[in-house]
Amino acid sequence: MHSLHVDLGERSYPILIGSGLMADPAHFQQCIRGKQVLVVTNETIAPLYLDTLCDALQGFSRVDVVQLPDGEAFKTLDTVNRIFDTLLEKRHDRGTTIVALGGGVVGDMSGFAAACYQRGVDFVQVPTTLLSQVDSSVGGKTGVNHPLGKNMIGAFYQPQLVLIDIDTLNTLPDRELSAGIAEVIKYGMICDPAFFQWLEQNMDKLLARDPEALAYAVERSCADKAAVVAEDERESGRRAILNFGHTFGHAIEAVQGYGNWLHGEAVATGMVMAAELSRLRGWISEHDVARLRALLEKAALPQQSPEDMTVDDYLAAMSVDKKVKNGKLRLILLRGLGDARISDDTPKDQLIEVLRACGAR
Amino acid sequence: MHSLHVDLGERSYPILIGSGLMADPAHFQQCIRGKQVLVVTNETIAPLYLDTLCDALQGFSRVDVVQLPDGEAFKTLDTVNRIFDTLLEKRHDRGTTIVALGGGVVGDMSGFAAACYQRGVDFVQVPTTLLSQVDSSVGGKTGVNHPLGKNMIGAFYQPQLVLIDIDTLNTLPDRELSAGIAEVIKYGMICDPAFFQWLEQNMDKLLARDPEALAYAVERSCADKAAVVAEDERESGRRAILNFGHTFGHAIEAVQGYGNWLHGEAVATGMVMAAELSRLRGWISEHDVARLRALLEKAALPQQSPEDMTVDDYLAAMSVDKKVKNGKLRLILLRGLGDARISDDTPKDQLIEVLRACGAR
Repeated sequence: MHSLHVDLGERSYPILIGSGLMADPAHFQQCIRGKQVLVVTNETIAPLYLDTLCDALQGFSRVDVVQLPDGEAFKTLDTVNRIFDTLLEKRHDRGTTIVALGGGVVGDMSGFAAACYQRGVDFVQVPTTLLSQVDSSVGGKTGVNHPLGKNMIGAFYQPQLVLIDIDTLNTLPDRELSAGIAEVIKYGMICDPAFFQWLEQNMDKLLARDPEALAYAVERSCADKAAVVAEDERESGRRAILNFGHTFGHAIEAVQGYGNWLHGEAVATGMVMAAELSRLRGWISEHDVARLRALLEKAALPQQSPEDMTVDDYLAAMSVDKKVKNGKLRLILLRGLGDARISDDTPKDQLIEVLRACGAR
Repeated sequence: MHSLHVDLGERSYPILIGSGLMADPAHFQQCIRGKQVLVVTNETIAPLYLDTLCDALQGFSRVDVVQLPDGEAFKTLDTVNRIFDTLLEKRHDRGTTIVALGGGVVGDMSGFAAACYQRGVDFVQVPTTLLSQVDSSVGGKTGVNHPLGKNMIGAFYQPQLVLIDIDTLNTLPDRELSAGIAEVIKYGMICDPAFFQWLEQNMDKLLARDPEALAYAVERSCADKAAVVAEDERESGRRAILNFGHTFGHAIEAVQGYGNWLHGEAVATGMVMAAELSRLRGWISEHDVARLRALLEKAALPQQSPEDMTVDDYLAAMSVDKKVKNGKLRLILLRGLGDARISDDTPKDQLIEVLRACGAR
């Protein structure tokens, strides 16, 4: 078992990474302080892992379950309200712990429910997708979508424990594995060139679900993210580099409808756009962009805009993105491979040129 | 103008108290950092003060308004969602500031919206009722009700500024003035016996809306509350004494339907119940209870349970109250006038005896 410490002062917590962790009651007993537990999961994950998790939680006097519909389309305030309904119907008090079993959508909504229920209860994450293991398990971002924007409603809220059972990746569809790998590649691009190189050498192993390779990639991704978050927990500065590719990606997701493009797929295309824009500004070389493109191709990730999206679609969607500050478009670009920077002064014509080159009409 | 500093480290903020403060642009210009402002108010307060406030905000490039229905019945997640709708429709970004103009309901929902919009934006309170001036302007409790419990969904979130314009009390109905005085009396009861004595001597002036007396009572109440909150921001310990009378009061509000009994009226009756229970346990004298009763009577506040409530109504409602921790009923009782204590070991038969004595069937 690998373990990682996310250092956030009194909000610090451990991430445990390994095989078969979910079945071990000891991990839960060490970090859950009360007697009540609510497991939040979805209809896809429940048949696969709910029994294993509930067996491991047998020591707690009250274990309730709420099962949500699966998919980004259900990441809404209404769905979170179903968690509140269950907590109150089953009389969970301030000492309860919410355990999220599932991917990023389950984790984001469970964390937000934990942040808001009685103004804050304990929270444990058991992420079951590669994307949620390397992304949402570090950083404390929780929340839901609004019809007018993704993740517009939420809270910064840290868990007591993140438990990453690598075995859950065995049941992950290929397409979702690739989508998770997009975020893994992102860490290499923004802050870890050695890891990028490792990925170039080991992508085949990841795609073949080699457990050692997967555990290493997850651990290194979490460590990279934790280092960035520890510097800037509430995203007032450097943390924004984690949004590399995301402003473009969110535009794709918003216009395509959440869920039609997977988050990681949209981010992959967004990373290409951000890299091409960095190149156009003379900040990185064509060779660096080619390396990114080659790695994404190996991972079976898209690099071109959806055919039906226009430049105006992007511009409209991006101007309500959270990364806009005081009316200026904020983008994350690269000064070199492994060196992301926040840029507030992208010329609009260069942005449009890149969007066109990447397939927007 | 009086001013008070609420000391919460990096979340510290000032409270300004005086006449005509709302019309002065300087106070807002000093604390609002961005260019966008959303004023949240309700249909009762808007005709009285919205123009004055908007005039004072003229220096900001974008001032939008959302007007909510009035009343505790509308303190719901759905109503907060209307604030999110407006913020997104009008394209407010992370640099926006939400200004709450109104009583506790407007303040609680605006603060919760500020806590959650894009995971946190700035927040200014302009409380217009005595209750909100002495209670919700200190402490950072924000949130909404759920059909199964009051304030069950929310966040701890501190404002940048609380601006208390005493002149707004001139338009407050008598019944609401009295309800606010209930919370003022509470501070004397739980931690400030000298203030309790001052209230015994100056209740007539408060009821006659003497501006000096009102400003003093508001400032002293805020100072008392700030001292308790500074010790225990997130209510892990001593802060719970602020709930004196509230566990009973919340039961009354929940069973009667929010809004039929005003919060302060329910708290007044709840304080009598808590005081009688303290006396039954031998912790305070009959004389102390009599002083509380006499002061509440002067302030035209109720002391008896609603006629249609049974002991079982109370017990059922109290067991889902947030003050329950790990299954134990937690009540705030008095060890003497001005000395509140947290008690976890109230015998059920004494509780029932007091409920009966106070008019529960």
